[in-house]
Amino acid sequence: MHQIQRLTVIGVGLIGGSFALKLRELGLVQDVVGCGRNTDNLDKALELGVIDHAVTDPTVAVAGADLVLLAVPLGSIAPIYQQIQPFLAPNAVITDVGSAKASVINEIADLIGECPTQFVPGHPIAGREQSGVAAADNELFKAHRVILTPLEHTCPEALARVKALWQAVGAQVSEMTACYHDEVFAATSHLPHLLAFALVDMLNEHPELGNVFQYTAGGFRDFTRIASSDADMWRDIAVQNHHAIIKWLEAYQAELAKLAQLLTTQNGDELHQLFSAAKAARDKHIVNRTA
Amino acid sequence: MHQIQRLTVIGVGLIGGSFALKLRELGLVQDVVGCGRNTDNLDKALELGVIDHAVTDPTVAVAGADLVLLAVPLGSIAPIYQQIQPFLAPNAVITDVGSAKASVINEIADLIGECPTQFVPGHPIAGREQSGVAAADNELFKAHRVILTPLEHTCPEALARVKALWQAVGAQVSEMTACYHDEVFAATSHLPHLLAFALVDMLNEHPELGNVFQYTAGGFRDFTRIASSDADMWRDIAVQNHHAIIKWLEAYQAELAKLAQLLTTQNGDELHQLFSAAKAARDKHIVNRTA
Repeated sequence: MHQIQRLTVIGVGLIGGSFALKLRELGLVQDVVGCGRNTDNLDKALELGVIDHAVTDPTVAVAGADLVLLAVPLGSIAPIYQQIQPFLAPNAVITDVGSAKASVINEIADLIGECPTQFVPGHPIAGREQSGVAAADNELFKAHRVILTPLEHTCPEALARVKALWQAVGAQVSEMTACYHDEVFAATSHLPHLLAFALVDMLNEHPELGNVFQYTAGGFRDFTRIASSDADMWRDIAVQNHHAIIKWLEAYQAELAKLAQLLTTQNGDELHQLFSAAKAARDKHIVNRTA
Repeated sequence: MHQIQRLTVIGVGLIGGSFALKLRELGLVQDVVGCGRNTDNLDKALELGVIDHAVTDPTVAVAGADLVLLAVPLGSIAPIYQQIQPFLAPNAVITDVGSAKASVINEIADLIGECPTQFVPGHPIAGREQSGVAAADNELFKAHRVILTPLEHTCPEALARVKALWQAVGAQVSEMTACYHDEVFAATSHLPHLLAFALVDMLNEHPELGNVFQYTAGGFRDFTRIASSDADMWRDIAVQNHHAIIKWLEAYQAELAKLAQLLTTQNGDELHQLFSAAKAARDKHIVNRTA
């Protein structure tokens, strides 16, 4: 496999740090430049051997890089792309890790005229409750999915290169359109996060019930685990992917209206049918899947 | 502590079996009668030493019992109470483990004229994905809550006795009204279960998206864990506690309407505020609580 001379990671956190760490371990990268605003974090990354050079200015960080990973918060990807664009090496391949894809692609196109052929939009489905480079783990992507959403004009060699690197760090890579990606993740990830945030928000210090959290157990803890996610990150995702999220939220509201109707009419048979179909689907696809 | 001469457990599953097992271990019960329709399960209970006698007829099973635990599905509690009532010893104390309380109390009162003073309605907040007596565990109730919802006319000695037994098996016992109980558990347990069932049902074999479950990870798995719960049990709970559940479902629908509005207007500030308030509440009450 083609070695990378210089990898520049902009945003050296859990994702960016873990990617660099594993590529170094595999000997697939010669030199790693880490870029971020938090110099303590960059010092930590140097100390942990995740990066070779720490740079705070993205336009300096990308000099001479043949691969640039944008691992910054979703709302910062396009602005940073615009900033580094004039300083990129002619054959540099750029990829990102944003949880929404169409908004990143459109925003970059708006800012610099067209979405560059060397840009391969990506989304690794890996995360932990811990963040920051101190949590970097060379096995983070093992058996996890990475979704790539190339455009029609994306350079096939750039796509192949990014794909090969994610596979090298252990990920299972899928390709789909940005639009399909955004729908799927609106439905299976963004919506559930909003549902969990909304439930905890509704019950918190409820004027009628008081502190109800004291009566909850494991079911509630698991159901709301994603409501302990980072508010900055989820604000960005909610705003950037609002179009697809609204669509799936509306579908869900219709589902709840159906449920309310079954409750009002005390329709035990249809409630049972809905519950057992859901249980069967989850047991089949989530509990018993092999991957 | 006052020893029980004969404990009759109607419904020898995870809950009933674990209760009997721990009381035996503590030497607090002389003799345990297990009652159920499934003779294989009763044989298993005998083999595991959870019960001393296996009986399939509840009217026979309660003969001579000073404590009767009704650990049957929610919809069967009142009908079985009606059936055993003429055969109960004069001083027998009866308690149940149903997840909704007002419906059980009202149904018993409807069937036998008045809710008996010797009946102490209860709800242990303990459960596992496994069920049946084979999963019985003498530590199941340790550090878990048990809610008792006595009526004004409930016999204080009966209440004290049931409370002492739950404390003996390790539970932390709270008392509240049946009505408050049903509201709290509609909001914190029944509603989340319905939300999880509804999401999985909506996404299952979706005509537009296909099999989206393949793209889900740990967040979705945890959020939907309760959608793998038993459909019979949840049909009973949904029907029996429909009044309180509808109330909280409507409150939640209003919360989602607010969220949809914030998404439509791309109001990042208010979305951030909602997410961070929810995260702070969960981190405070769920993640960092001591019990």
